[in-house]
Parts: sequence; C-alpha cells; structure tokens
Amino acid sequence: MSKPSIPQGMRDFSPEEVRKRQYILGTLRTIFENYGFQPLETPTMENLVTLTGKYGEEGDRLIFKVLNNGLHEKKDADKEKLSAEWAKLLAKPYSSPVVTERALRYDLTIPFARYVVMHQNELTFPFRRYQMQPVWRADRPQKGRYREFWQCDADVVGSTSLINEAELLCIYQSAFYQLGLPQVAIKINSRKLLAGLAEICNAPELMMEITIALDKLDKIGWIGVVAELQQRGVADTGIAQIEKVINVKGDNLEKLTALKDIMKSSATGLEGIKELEQTLAYYDKLKLAEWTATIEVDISLARGLNYYTGVIVEVACRAVQMGSIGGGGRYDDLTGLFGLKGLSGVGVSFGIDRIYDVIKELNLFPPQLVAGTQVIIINFGGENELYALEVLKQLRAAGIAAEVYPDAVKFDKQMKYANKRNTVYVILPGTEEREQQKVSLKNYVTGEQKLMSINDCIDTIKGH
Amino acid sequence: MSKPSIPQGMRDFSPEEVRKRQYILGTLRTIFENYGFQPLETPTMENLVTLTGKYGEEGDRLIFKVLNNGLHEKKDADKEKLSAEWAKLLAKPYSSPVVTERALRYDLTIPFARYVVMHQNELTFPFRRYQMQPVWRADRPQKGRYREFWQCDADVVGSTSLINEAELLCIYQSAFYQLGLPQVAIKINSRKLLAGLAEICNAPELMMEITIALDKLDKIGWIGVVAELQQRGVADTGIAQIEKVINVKGDNLEKLTALKDIMKSSATGLEGIKELEQTLAYYDKLKLAEWTATIEVDISLARGLNYYTGVIVEVACRAVQMGSIGGGGRYDDLTGLFGLKGLSGVGVSFGIDRIYDVIKELNLFPPQLVAGTQVIIINFGGENELYALEVLKQLRAAGIAAEVYPDAVKFDKQMKYANKRNTVYVILPGTEEREQQKVSLKNYVTGEQKLMSINDCIDTIKGH
Repeated sequence: MSKPSIPQGMRDFSPEEVRKRQYILGTLRTIFENYGFQPLETPTMENLVTLTGKYGEEGDRLIFKVLNNGLHEKKDADKEKLSAEWAKLLAKPYSSPVVTERALRYDLTIPFARYVVMHQNELTFPFRRYQMQPVWRADRPQKGRYREFWQCDADVVGSTSLINEAELLCIYQSAFYQLGLPQVAIKINSRKLLAGLAEICNAPELMMEITIALDKLDKIGWIGVVAELQQRGVADTGIAQIEKVINVKGDNLEKLTALKDIMKSSATGLEGIKELEQTLAYYDKLKLAEWTATIEVDISLARGLNYYTGVIVEVACRAVQMGSIGGGGRYDDLTGLFGLKGLSGVGVSFGIDRIYDVIKELNLFPPQLVAGTQVIIINFGGENELYALEVLKQLRAAGIAAEVYPDAVKFDKQMKYANKRNTVYVILPGTEEREQQKVSLKNYVTGEQKLMSINDCIDTIKGH
Repeated sequence: MSKPSIPQGMRDFSPEEVRKRQYILGTLRTIFENYGFQPLETPTMENLVTLTGKYGEEGDRLIFKVLNNGLHEKKDADKEKLSAEWAKLLAKPYSSPVVTERALRYDLTIPFARYVVMHQNELTFPFRRYQMQPVWRADRPQKGRYREFWQCDADVVGSTSLINEAELLCIYQSAFYQLGLPQVAIKINSRKLLAGLAEICNAPELMMEITIALDKLDKIGWIGVVAELQQRGVADTGIAQIEKVINVKGDNLEKLTALKDIMKSSATGLEGIKELEQTLAYYDKLKLAEWTATIEVDISLARGLNYYTGVIVEVACRAVQMGSIGGGGRYDDLTGLFGLKGLSGVGVSFGIDRIYDVIKELNLFPPQLVAGTQVIIINFGGENELYALEVLKQLRAAGIAAEVYPDAVKFDKQMKYANKRNTVYVILPGTEEREQQKVSLKNYVTGEQKLMSINDCIDTIKGH
C-alpha cells in the first residue's frame, strides 16, 4: 500500500492550527454581530454557469469543475453525445453541462450577489452580511498560496450612505485591535479621485492606465512610475499634475485640503474628496480611543478590481514583510450581473491566512490555544481510577478542560503524554490522595507539586 | 439572463439558519474542548485513490469527482490518451487519474484515518479528536437529505480502555442536556453480544444475518423478525434463544444479569456483557445529576457499519418522529486501511441536520438567535445623525449588538426595517433627545417608549 497523501495545495489543520484559526474567526464573528452584520453561508458547489465569465479568462481557467455523476450509467445515445462534448472540452476552454455542470466556489462575492438576487423579495435592505468560508482555485501552489483557502467578507448592499464606509473602517480597527496586531495602516482612497486625476491630466480615457502605473509606486518608485506613465501615453503636463498630487503631504485633512485645490477643475475629483471627508467625519464619531491603527489617505492606492466605483481601502501590517491583509470598497452594480440593477454596495474582506501568518510571526496567539486541555489526570488504576473519574467530573463541571489518561499504564508513559500535550497542570490522584479525598496538583512549568482539596485545585487552575 | 439558482441538493443558509447552526456547533465545540478532545480539519478535496473502495460499491458511485484542470492545454499525444481514458470512464465505473484525480470528502472517518497514518510520528496517543465539517454525496436529493451536509465526529484512537466509551456517553448526555432536547434515549449494545447470540444459536456464521433481522424489530415486530430469521437459515431452536434474549426486561443491570445466564455458554457473549457493565460503571462515576437522557441496553441494536467490533451506541429523540440523531462504537482496525495496524478506536457522531430539525420542531432555539441585532437606531439626519453615531458607539462598546439605519430616509421606512429585523428595541435620537444627551427607547414588544440616559438605556437592553 502506498503512503497516503493529500492533493497539492490542500492542507490538514492540526488541533493547534484549528484552535488558532477559530480564535481569529471567532473574534471577527463577534465583531460582525456587534455591528449588526448578519451571517450568510452559501453552498460549496454552484452551478458552473453562475461562475463562468465573472472572474476574467484567467479566473475561468482556475475554477475547479465537478464531474457529473453516473456518466457510465447513461444510454448509448447519450454516451455518444458525451464523447463529442469531451472532444470539444479538450479542444479549447469550453464548458459542457453534460460533462460538468457544477463547480467549486471561487470567491464569496459572486455567490453573495447570486443570493441577494434570488432572495431579493425576502431580504430587508440595506442588507448587511458577513461570510467566512473556504474557496478553491486551481492556482499553481507556492509558499503562502493554497488551492483551498478561507475568505472573510463583510458587505452592505442597498444603501449609498457613507456611514457604511465608516462602519467598515471601525470593523477593521476593532478587529486588528482585538487581535493585537501592531503597526496596522488602513489606506483609503476613492476611485473618483483617480478619475479626477485623469481628468486634470486631460486624459480621462487613461484613468485605468494611470491607476495601474500609480499602483506600482511602492515597488518601482517615482522614476519608474514616470517611465510607465510615458509608455502608457500620459503627456508630460499630465505627469506634472500627478507628481503634484503624490507629493501632497500632511495629515488626512491637510492632504484633502491640498487635493481640493489641485483638483478644482474636476467635479468628479472634488466629489471623491468630499466623500472621503464625510467618511472620515463619520468615522471620527464612531471611533474608540483605544484603537491603534492609522487611517491614511493615499492617492496611489488603486485596488485591482474593476468593479469598485467609490471609496476604496487596503490594510497593511507594517510590523512584518507581508502583502495586504485586507481590502475593499464601494461598488455600484454587483447584482446587475444577475439582473438586479441599481443596488449599491460596499464591502471589505479579511485575509484570514495572512492574518494568521502575521499573528504567528509576531507570536501574538494567546498561549492557551496551544494545549487545549488544561489539566491531565494520571490513572493509577483500580480504586484510584474510579477516584480519578470523580475528580475529573468535578473539574469539568467547573468549566476546566480536563482529561484522565484512559489506561492505567506506566507512570512514565502517562507523564510523557501530559508533557507532549503541553498542559500546565497534572493531577496525581493516588491512594493517599483518595483516602484523604484530596489531590496532588503538579505545575509542569514550575515543577511544584502540592497536596490540596479538589476545590482548591479548581481555584488554582482557574486562577492561572 | 436566466434567473440564478443553486444545484440540486445544495443549500444557502440564511442569517437566522447560520446563527442557529452556529449555536449547535458552538455548544458541541465547547463540550468537546471541555473533555480534552482536539479539533481537526481536513481538506475538502482528497486524492480520489484515498476514497475509492472505502465505502462499498454504492459509495464509490456517490463520490463527487473533480475534473482535472487545464485539460485543453495538454499536448496532442496527451489528449489522445485523455480520450481513451474518457471512453473507459463511460464504459464502466472506472477512475482515471488523468481525467480526475481529486474528489470531495465523503465522510470524516476515512480522512481522519488517513491523517492519523500520515502523522503517526507526531501525534500523541491516545489521540482524541473532534471534527465538524461538511461532506458531499451524489445521492438523490429528497426531504431531509442533501448533497452537502455536515458531520460531527468525536473519536479516541490508541486506547482500548472502556473509560473512552463512558466519556463518549457523557459527551452525548452533556450535549443533549445543554441543547435542551427532551426524551433522549441512548441505546447501547455490543457487537460481542451479537456474536454471542449467534453462538448460542449454534450459528456463529450467521451473526450478520441475525443482526440484520433483529435490527428490524422496531419496524416489523417479532413475527416479522421470526419470518426473516427462518428465511435467513436460523433454526427454530436458535430463534427460541433469540426470543429469550429480546424478552429480557428490567433496568440495565437486571438485563445484563439475565443475559449472563442465557449467554453462559458463549465466552464472546460474556465478554460483551462484561464490557457493557464496565462501561456503565465508569459512566456512573462521571455522570452529572442534572442529565436527563436515558441509557438503555438494547440487544436489538445493530448499527449498519461492518467495522464496529465492540460497544455500539445509537441516540433517538422520542419527542419527535425522526431517525437516530447520533451513533457510534468501537472499531479495532480503522487505520489498517492505510497500513497502520493494531490501533483500536472508539467514536461517536452527531447528526447535525437532524438535531437542527428536532430543535426547530420543538421550538427550543434561544429566541435571540432570530434577530442577531438587539437594537436599531433611527437616523434623523444632520446633527441628529451624528448624535445617533455617538449613541451607537456607546452601545457597541457595552457589548450590545446595535446598528444605525445608514440613510436619513422617511421614519416609516426605517421603522419597517426595524420591524422586519425582529429587534426588540428601537432607539429614537431626535433633536430633543440630543439636546438633553438622552435617548427615547421603544420596546417593540410592549409598545412602551421612554426617555432615558444612554447608560439607563444600556442597562435596560442588557437586562432584557
């Protein structure tokens, strides 16, 4: 028999990893609920037709398709048709509903839009939902990139109020504060500002070109951006305007004031500035004093996805070398893809895998997530075994995660087990302890061992 | 554009459904952790070769297979091979790694065995794990049967101690007690008792035949079982023995005492009885006074799966018409499938979807799961809108799930929204309230409305 394995790009999550992931997801879930966001879960499989054409050509290629079942049970005429379809499928990227009609969820956005359209008559708008589920992409696996990974999105659809943008900023703040992430920067911009920038360059048709070039400022520096802008057909007078804009300094209000002057000839640009001002004003009303992330107006922020139309955000944790750990923005017509027009939305997502990596690298996971079990009770067999169960019952009833070693094997073997399980405490209920209805509690960290009543033992473990 | 839909047998879970499901899963998770069970998560896709041949012929047919990606990008020679493989695939149930090498998880047991074998050198045995994840089966969808559904398993491998059996009984008890399920019966038996029964019928080779017939006792009655036993080749003297056994009455200890006498000629049967006695003795030491489910020795309990070898259990909720809501047992060689012999295990599973249906039918979900948000703040625009945000901030900081209506639209529309969201409270922060730095809190249930300080408002909502 060959050694069992799992497919490339897939992961098993060990107990410690599951607990740590649950800690992140649970923290986010509590915040979402506190903010009145409602949970949604969509199925793993969608109709292939729901997904194709939504993620670009590259996306279509990376969708995992599920083979229809019972193909060998078809009638001969149907099998002929199946063979013809198969030939087409091999000839070019082609979907055939008789070979495959279902596919694995590729992101959470399209299923969300599909859900809203299907349930538009039951839903109460504005609809605020969050969703935390895995998605699948047949990307080439590499370090930090998996074929199954978790997304976590929060969106509001059916309201154009900028209070929504401000609330999503607060959700970011609250989440990164509660997870203890240091040096978090939430960059904010508006697609309208980028459109305004193209207008004052006298090249509104080059908005995407300018955006793409500017997006690389961090990586290739201003000199590089200039070369790219020239190559993409932006005139030198335009480049001078762009230079003015990216040289705007100061705090957010100072930046926005300076931008207002530079953008004064662009109605779209001024609207973008006004929206950012209003978002920040709402945010100021909602923010808590203890939050530590900075909110930074950054006109070079572009965000790749074309469907954004208003405010956009992106989150970086500067304490580590890592791409963005979150991002989002306002989109005007997501559900239009499925025939429901005019429903504006705004959303953010959390990069769960990267946030996990940041917390791990900075060693910020609460230590109790490592062990799970708080105390292991040694099994001395016979009467002492039954006494151990009595102790176990009382510990658990007091809310302490506890276990007894199920077999009365050698003491050393049991202690080795406890050691490997990383528990702080071990209880040794031998004959002497049983006769006194007490326990010996050993602290693995300090090495200290003490005889005490079961109640004192419970207090000691709980006080740890 | 056609109306979007989801594939047959798939489900979207609405916010209320997700909250209710999370309530069940969260309750179980807390219990598992309290009992020292460790969480495990395995990937959605396994290698097809890991799954095939493990679930019988019918199972193989129901596995969802994932089409390999990039087929149309293959070289011509490879495409020829692909077409030949496709022809084979259509001719008979056949797996082809060049067409499909991955498949969706079909249950949690085989991936668990695969994980244990892959990680045998890192794991600490006995290994106690729980796992709550969806599985997929291409079954014909019908009422209560889905193609994507959740399983929840808890197992201990690497220990033969019957303390494990007793602990799993406690986990069942604790779970159904905390979820408030009435009239729960945990039936318990041993495969060894069933083997013993076949021995005292002088037909050890007919153990499975006898088991299958007995399993139908509830459905077809004793007369039906007799007919089936005769048809399956059990002699009348054997049937008389079986009748004696199923007529054993009394509490568990009385039953086991009577069985000991009937089974005195079968060493296997006596061993089964001893194991049940020991399991119940351990259980008695661990059980809490408040638990309400009954534990019933039931010799007609068979459990379908062939891999069980010792104690077996099955859970019914007699308050509703519904199949079993859980079951499990001892198996001796699960990991042997992947080459690791001699690792005994015992496990139970919870039928999440059925438990959900029982709680729903009996109306036992905590009422707060319906709404999510506890209070909605009406938005009167302008200065009052900013004051509403101030109030919102304070409510959330106090841990109250709250939201403000994001747009200052007509009062009626906002009240209608609040009503549809099912919140108990609405806050009306108008000009008068703002000037006094107070709020008007309206209770939707009583219709009462009262002017109060923000702190009193927080106390009132929290006290609800």
